[in-house]
Amino acid sequence: MDYSRYDRVRAVAWTGEALRLLDQRKLPFTQGFIELDDSDAVAKAIHDLVVRGAPAIGIAAAWGVVLAARNLEAADGPAALVALEPAMQRLNASRPTAVNLAWALARLRAVLSRAGSDWYAVLTAEAEAIEAEDLAANRRMGGLGAALIEPGSGLLTHCNTGSLATSGFGTALGVVRAGVAEGRVARVFAGETRPWNQGARLTVWELLEDGIDATLIADSAAAHLMASGAVQWVVVGADRVTANGDVANKIGTLALALAARHFGVGFMVVAPSSTVDLDTASGADIEIEERDPAELLTHLGQRTVADGVKAWNPVFDVTPAELVSALVTERGVVLRPDADSMRRTFGA
Amino acid sequence: MDYSRYDRVRAVAWTGEALRLLDQRKLPFTQGFIELDDSDAVAKAIHDLVVRGAPAIGIAAAWGVVLAARNLEAADGPAALVALEPAMQRLNASRPTAVNLAWALARLRAVLSRAGSDWYAVLTAEAEAIEAEDLAANRRMGGLGAALIEPGSGLLTHCNTGSLATSGFGTALGVVRAGVAEGRVARVFAGETRPWNQGARLTVWELLEDGIDATLIADSAAAHLMASGAVQWVVVGADRVTANGDVANKIGTLALALAARHFGVGFMVVAPSSTVDLDTASGADIEIEERDPAELLTHLGQRTVADGVKAWNPVFDVTPAELVSALVTERGVVLRPDADSMRRTFGA
Repeated sequence: MDYSRYDRVRAVAWTGEALRLLDQRKLPFTQGFIELDDSDAVAKAIHDLVVRGAPAIGIAAAWGVVLAARNLEAADGPAALVALEPAMQRLNASRPTAVNLAWALARLRAVLSRAGSDWYAVLTAEAEAIEAEDLAANRRMGGLGAALIEPGSGLLTHCNTGSLATSGFGTALGVVRAGVAEGRVARVFAGETRPWNQGARLTVWELLEDGIDATLIADSAAAHLMASGAVQWVVVGADRVTANGDVANKIGTLALALAARHFGVGFMVVAPSSTVDLDTASGADIEIEERDPAELLTHLGQRTVADGVKAWNPVFDVTPAELVSALVTERGVVLRPDADSMRRTFGA
Repeated sequence: MDYSRYDRVRAVAWTGEALRLLDQRKLPFTQGFIELDDSDAVAKAIHDLVVRGAPAIGIAAAWGVVLAARNLEAADGPAALVALEPAMQRLNASRPTAVNLAWALARLRAVLSRAGSDWYAVLTAEAEAIEAEDLAANRRMGGLGAALIEPGSGLLTHCNTGSLATSGFGTALGVVRAGVAEGRVARVFAGETRPWNQGARLTVWELLEDGIDATLIADSAAAHLMASGAVQWVVVGADRVTANGDVANKIGTLALALAARHFGVGFMVVAPSSTVDLDTASGADIEIEERDPAELLTHLGQRTVADGVKAWNPVFDVTPAELVSALVTERGVVLRPDADSMRRTFGA
């Protein structure tokens, strides 16, 4: 199916000489792009959330390695790999939870380790492939996920998993786009996603850009929304899916999964197979990133909470596999994932 | 037990000549008090949210009637009642949805209708009684609720149910205060309470004023907090408790109750018996107020969401009785409330 009518936003683009990023810190009011021509600037942009979303971070990091490689003289891939390793380490350290960052870097390491004197062309081709495969995977997942949705359904999504978080189309938001394109979706709701407000600032903006009508809710209103019968599926992305099917995703996802189970609402996780981490046994083994409490204590640069107040700001949580109705990847759909079905679908 | 060390905040005070209100619109940055010496100024202060919280509004309105009565010449209570009725009507119209406002005015009408020439002293005594009974009920509930808490526990609360919302001490926040005073509470967390941020603006400020260390979290981080084992009780107030024990309270309460049940955390509702409404069968019969979507689309007067985006802003949700571990009122504690136990405790 042609989804292009609903796929007009792009956040990450390689210009041939630089990495062009839509500065997501300034959305929805300013659509400002910045061009980065060195690797450490890319690492800083990832850390500072200029670019965000696990797949987009992996793609940006891949282009960051290309930028580090541009003026490098090396006889072959293995020599280039040694020289690039410090820059790759700094890119890898820019965000801790999303597995796609390490996954993209591992792909680049693998091709470099086998490359000869044309290692720079090989490296660039691999970065291009990572980006192109992501877009193709998103479109495929969109179709697979939409097929699970009964016509007339309402969807609730969380955070931003759209074109802004990927090479384009999105993961969970790709399912929303595909469901709308196929005429299956009657209502779309988005949680504002405190404290960074990705839903309020990014998701509803991105959907509006594509002409998709969405209604914003407070994260805490989601259970009441489900109780009302207005939504049939919660559709979210993932930052990491472990060997037993546990899902690390944006803080608040766990509460949505618990409410969905209570009210008989489907809970769909949409993520490329690169997000699946069979080397991590379960969610208990995932390091959960905690960010600056200031994100909860200020808004638009203004202090909003009394001086002296502390805050705790974990940015991910872990949803146990038993609360997941369907895991949608480009390799197929895993219903009610567990260690066996995960190994069958994603094992070597 | 003497809780006075943890009970220093007062939002409403009668000076003997005027009503002194802490201006809650300016918290937490400015602790500004205003003194009102006429009844219509009190009505305007209630309307303008200088004072908020159902019990606090009822108390302020009672003192507003006393202010209207101060220079009134009347032979007896019934005559005074006729003369005061226009002022009482204006007070009643200041926040027509707050049930305590009408309840407080009804108490004053009742005593005036029976009073003789000492009607002014009777009226003042009844206003004092309304305020004093609220404070006594809160302290009693604090002790009853704290007795359920094992030493070393962590508590999570939602919205503002404290001294700012009552004559003092608070309902759910009274249990937090009593638990701290009795040395049972090791950790206190407060959800920011989108979209009005009562937790972020009021609750953590109020606790800090009493030297109680509290940590602010995003509402959506509550399930992850419970998964971590850091809290043993969720402690919330109520806007209405129905005949079967269902609880209408601030939006987000239902999600907390679902997570609490999943993670084996206790869920305590603290409310005076005047909140119990045996005439309403269950939560399904409660109309849920929806407020202006602008509350989700702006912050501190600034638009934070793209133009053209819609929002849905329900203010309350309903937590089913089966998720309530304990309902604490000044008449006693009802464990796992249901229609039978509610009727036994609160029936005529």
